[in-house]
Amino acid sequence: MTTRLGRSLCFLPMQLLLVGLGPLGIKLAADVYERGLGSIEAAVDVSPKLLGRSLLDLVPTSKSPLRVTGDLEAAGARGLDAAVVATSSSLVSCAPTLCTLLGRGMCVVSTCEELFWPWLRHAELARELDDLAKRCGGRLLGTGVNPGFVMDAFCLGLTAVSRAVDSIEVHRYQDATTRRIPFQKKIGVSLEEAQFQAQVAAGSLRHVGLGESLHFLASHLGWPVEHWEEDIAPVYASRDLPSGLGMVPTGKICGVRQSARGRVGGRTRIELKFQASLGLEDPHDRTIVRGEPELDVRIQNGVHGDVATSAITLNAIRALQKAPPGLHSMASIPMVHCAKAHA
Amino acid sequence: MTTRLGRSLCFLPMQLLLVGLGPLGIKLAADVYERGLGSIEAAVDVSPKLLGRSLLDLVPTSKSPLRVTGDLEAAGARGLDAAVVATSSSLVSCAPTLCTLLGRGMCVVSTCEELFWPWLRHAELARELDDLAKRCGGRLLGTGVNPGFVMDAFCLGLTAVSRAVDSIEVHRYQDATTRRIPFQKKIGVSLEEAQFQAQVAAGSLRHVGLGESLHFLASHLGWPVEHWEEDIAPVYASRDLPSGLGMVPTGKICGVRQSARGRVGGRTRIELKFQASLGLEDPHDRTIVRGEPELDVRIQNGVHGDVATSAITLNAIRALQKAPPGLHSMASIPMVHCAKAHA
Repeated sequence: MTTRLGRSLCFLPMQLLLVGLGPLGIKLAADVYERGLGSIEAAVDVSPKLLGRSLLDLVPTSKSPLRVTGDLEAAGARGLDAAVVATSSSLVSCAPTLCTLLGRGMCVVSTCEELFWPWLRHAELARELDDLAKRCGGRLLGTGVNPGFVMDAFCLGLTAVSRAVDSIEVHRYQDATTRRIPFQKKIGVSLEEAQFQAQVAAGSLRHVGLGESLHFLASHLGWPVEHWEEDIAPVYASRDLPSGLGMVPTGKICGVRQSARGRVGGRTRIELKFQASLGLEDPHDRTIVRGEPELDVRIQNGVHGDVATSAITLNAIRALQKAPPGLHSMASIPMVHCAKAHA
Repeated sequence: MTTRLGRSLCFLPMQLLLVGLGPLGIKLAADVYERGLGSIEAAVDVSPKLLGRSLLDLVPTSKSPLRVTGDLEAAGARGLDAAVVATSSSLVSCAPTLCTLLGRGMCVVSTCEELFWPWLRHAELARELDDLAKRCGGRLLGTGVNPGFVMDAFCLGLTAVSRAVDSIEVHRYQDATTRRIPFQKKIGVSLEEAQFQAQVAAGSLRHVGLGESLHFLASHLGWPVEHWEEDIAPVYASRDLPSGLGMVPTGKICGVRQSARGRVGGRTRIELKFQASLGLEDPHDRTIVRGEPELDVRIQNGVHGDVATSAITLNAIRALQKAPPGLHSMASIPMVHCAKAHA
């Protein structure tokens, strides 16, 4: 086919460096092998529970005797195609790792939520990362399902057919009933009101990225944001609801609702609404672009977060490799899509 | 904002060369002015009805005294940002124009349907255009709403979150009731069976691009197409239906249905279904990606073709300018999205 179609679109298996072997890192490593995308040639994590363990042990399908090391400096990068960093939502926490990898001229994709649109909270650091990448021939991208796709890149991509955009509204409504227990915990299921508020204050109970998604959209649409705000509130069970943490009685907290609004020209032109709760009926992702033409796009049942974040992170590597050196966003690289390696 | 966000995402007004001032070319020119994207600095069309006419006359909002010329060679390109070519669905027909523009190192976006994925029907010509573009520093892209977005680029972009894709099915179901009379004519409204078949045979009654959309998807997913086929059939009115061409009685032709299927690994993995007819209820565009995760995405009421084709063509210019020289597809350039020029 590649000859007949005049271009080769398959790619060679990738040799990757993986930083961070928490649940998401493990999922990423498993997908690299199970999808036949290539292999992990270096695995780095500072957790004492992981140090020295073999990849075979953590990811049986890898069949790899590679040992987890705590020393990124010692983990060679020679000949590797890219690095995947799955350590933290905080860009400041990830920065030393990112700098080391970019200094080697590597192509780096990270699930760090703040890196999706780093110009919002860390403009100076973003500039430094961009400079370093350009100087050393490295490439850097933050992505994931959200931020990274359903509430931002997907929505902006829709406006390809827009003659004019007046406002954008995005919904992500997820039913947490069938999700993993850690996810149910993370969204506050079964917490008392005071516990919920304490966890919100501590930053452990919230979806990170609405502000990043909002500013990604605004910037590309050429809208100067005069003011933006984000709020978060518990969702209360309207009936007794089963969960991995036991039955949640009527009136108790069964999830979280979060929203962000951005004002441009004196009125709200971007509104993002996120909810994850038990027993949510008709879960879906939806983007409404008001303008010319009107666009109302619905992803039935929504995009499953656990599968999708690992998928888009790995799918993004090839697109990032084709982009020029520097700090990128999902809008500055060629189209990210599913693909397979050469057999 | 641009300072605060660390990157400037607005752009300077564009100075454009427009080739082809048929209905789509006129719409493109009007949008350039009405959207404030820039100006048309040269307008070329070989039709005797258009030669010498002023842009002001053809596109009142342009307020431009520019005259339509028939001589592309004489239409200067110095200092122009890009050329838009809206002349023909046939790549062979467009090729001389494209070669002239690429030879000048221009950035060229065209609505030529075959150019969306030229490697299908014109692999040799595609190679020549790519070589010429690279040699002269030019860039070339074929786009539109379909092919160009709803049945291909949009669908492939969805697979960014896919771990695995098993098959793709795309529907575009349009209600022609409220569309322009030329569109109703083009889809066969009120024709007798023999007339319908004669127009299909002559190539004047068919949507051009299903094969291009199918191969764009297959190539990027790494699927070698063993066999593909396309069929076309009339749609008959199930009740009396009003149209711009008069009442269409029950049983008479009220539109067209077209589909394409691609076989990979012995089974159909891509299926594209297109229908445009009077009185079609619940019009929509829909993409079903079977795989992990399952994706079922519906654009309520569908994307309006007349607005969208002009919009995406103009929106694509800036993305193409950022890509390296050569012949591109919607998947090889940065994200196309709506944007506005600096005030």
